[in-house]
Amino acid sequence: MTAPFDRIPDRSIIEAAANRIASWAHRTPVLTCAAIDQRVGAAVHFKCENLQKVGAFKFRGATNAVFSLGDEEASRGVATHSSGNHAQALALAARNRGIPAHVVMPSTSAAPKKAAVIDYGAVVTECAPTLAARESTLDEVVARTGATFVHPYDDYRIIAGQATAAMELVEELPDLDVVLAPVGGGGLLSGTALAVHHFSPGTRTIAAEPRGADDAFRSLAAGEIIPSVDPDTIADGLLTSLGQRNFPIIRRHVERIVTVGDPTIIAAMRLVWERMKLIIEPSSAVPLAALLAGELDLSGARIGVIVSGGNVDLDRLPWLPHHR
Amino acid sequence: MTAPFDRIPDRSIIEAAANRIASWAHRTPVLTCAAIDQRVGAAVHFKCENLQKVGAFKFRGATNAVFSLGDEEASRGVATHSSGNHAQALALAARNRGIPAHVVMPSTSAAPKKAAVIDYGAVVTECAPTLAARESTLDEVVARTGATFVHPYDDYRIIAGQATAAMELVEELPDLDVVLAPVGGGGLLSGTALAVHHFSPGTRTIAAEPRGADDAFRSLAAGEIIPSVDPDTIADGLLTSLGQRNFPIIRRHVERIVTVGDPTIIAAMRLVWERMKLIIEPSSAVPLAALLAGELDLSGARIGVIVSGGNVDLDRLPWLPHHR
Repeated sequence: MTAPFDRIPDRSIIEAAANRIASWAHRTPVLTCAAIDQRVGAAVHFKCENLQKVGAFKFRGATNAVFSLGDEEASRGVATHSSGNHAQALALAARNRGIPAHVVMPSTSAAPKKAAVIDYGAVVTECAPTLAARESTLDEVVARTGATFVHPYDDYRIIAGQATAAMELVEELPDLDVVLAPVGGGGLLSGTALAVHHFSPGTRTIAAEPRGADDAFRSLAAGEIIPSVDPDTIADGLLTSLGQRNFPIIRRHVERIVTVGDPTIIAAMRLVWERMKLIIEPSSAVPLAALLAGELDLSGARIGVIVSGGNVDLDRLPWLPHHR
Repeated sequence: MTAPFDRIPDRSIIEAAANRIASWAHRTPVLTCAAIDQRVGAAVHFKCENLQKVGAFKFRGATNAVFSLGDEEASRGVATHSSGNHAQALALAARNRGIPAHVVMPSTSAAPKKAAVIDYGAVVTECAPTLAARESTLDEVVARTGATFVHPYDDYRIIAGQATAAMELVEELPDLDVVLAPVGGGGLLSGTALAVHHFSPGTRTIAAEPRGADDAFRSLAAGEIIPSVDPDTIADGLLTSLGQRNFPIIRRHVERIVTVGDPTIIAAMRLVWERMKLIIEPSSAVPLAALLAGELDLSGARIGVIVSGGNVDLDRLPWLPHHR
């Protein structure tokens, strides 16, 4: 059975996504840290999607999308343009289903990222490092192969898949006051907000965003999508603009978006590395950074945080000299 | 009720330790990694004591020892000499019981280590950086305060506490072929071997040791404790000689000890950081290094690995230039 991808995921669509991905994705642990609780003055529960396959929540959405396809459609494969976690996630999900994955990457992508995608079995097509070149190259690949384009976040199948992380979290902890997630394109945030709405209606959803890429914050204030222009932040997973399908969900179900600066993001990242022994990427540290900065009045609250991923270059850590 | 500390922990002593520490220690997750399984050619299950409180299995033994004391004895506090994880673990366990902890540390200890112990509420007494000064200073502290000395590993209460990690692992995975643990003083290894023997008798216990500190390997071959002299390895948690109480248990219940070189240890550590997103210290990487080096014929086996801890200096990683 194919999954509905033409409407906002409801309760049963998210449950179907959870069933669809169950045998492929890890049910990630929820971890706590007394030292962080003390620092924040609240009880913080980290849903560790950095421990998900491919090292990021992206594997949930990609798996849901790939296994939602009908057999005939699936046989022609899937395609995307991405140089990040979505490309790896889609490649592995496609390999699990035994179908081709086509990934369009700018020729300037770092060699390890390209190697990782190829390692998961995808066919990589390089293009010039512009949005126009990416899109035209993708169109060409889709036209030639008949593959189904799977957008990294502006897709209801992706949103339903990402929602399963928060669904598991609130299943395990039904009495959370608030769930925090980072926001980039909005795939994780819209899925999180929907899962919280459907499975833990008494819990609020709040987002955190880097100050150097605060387009979602400004979009929510303006009531319309404001594109991300020249973002500048260490949180390189959160640079993109909000998707058309993501924004209305966020507008309806996310209470507020707070912004934090890079120094606090780096400090939060290091705190998790040091005290929790978990490798998280800068984007994942943004919600904790918001808590550490006192941006939210959540003293004494029971908080869930979606830790989005752990893909970092171990030779270039932000607290070391010359990391960029 | 005080715990028996004068004999080798049996099944009921280990179960009592598990009950004693249950409300203080994390039940750590057991994690897997498809990429590592593929590389090793076996199914490897990592029992993540790096995610334990204080970042190491040491908190189990210290908590069992501290909560094994009678009230009157406990009121005078506990004492140890250590500059590592045991000191932090004992300090936190004592704070949890509301009793004093005295830690003798060489004046040359790194400032962060001293700060961590003080942060957990211990009273630190500095001494000259020699074994003789450590021991005489400890004797003086114990004579003055009446505190109970808790040895880092040569103590049956410690051994019973460390055993609870492997007990949880084999409870969760009753059909393991083998459990691997690193060996330094032998507290973790002797506890692991006892737990496997009592709770999963069909499972073998094998140890891994750095080639630059192979005193346990040589001790097992010789049939007597051979002290560790001038050890030289990146795995700085495994430098000490075997304890008097640990060696007989290891001799009886550990099938063999394999040794691996530092380059393989560093590669294994980095592999876990990169693919599992877990911060593990070099000592914790030694069993996986043995698997990667092909030192063990465990192709297709179901393997449990005790990941001992995750306390590393994030400014000095072994794969970065000038890390020492």
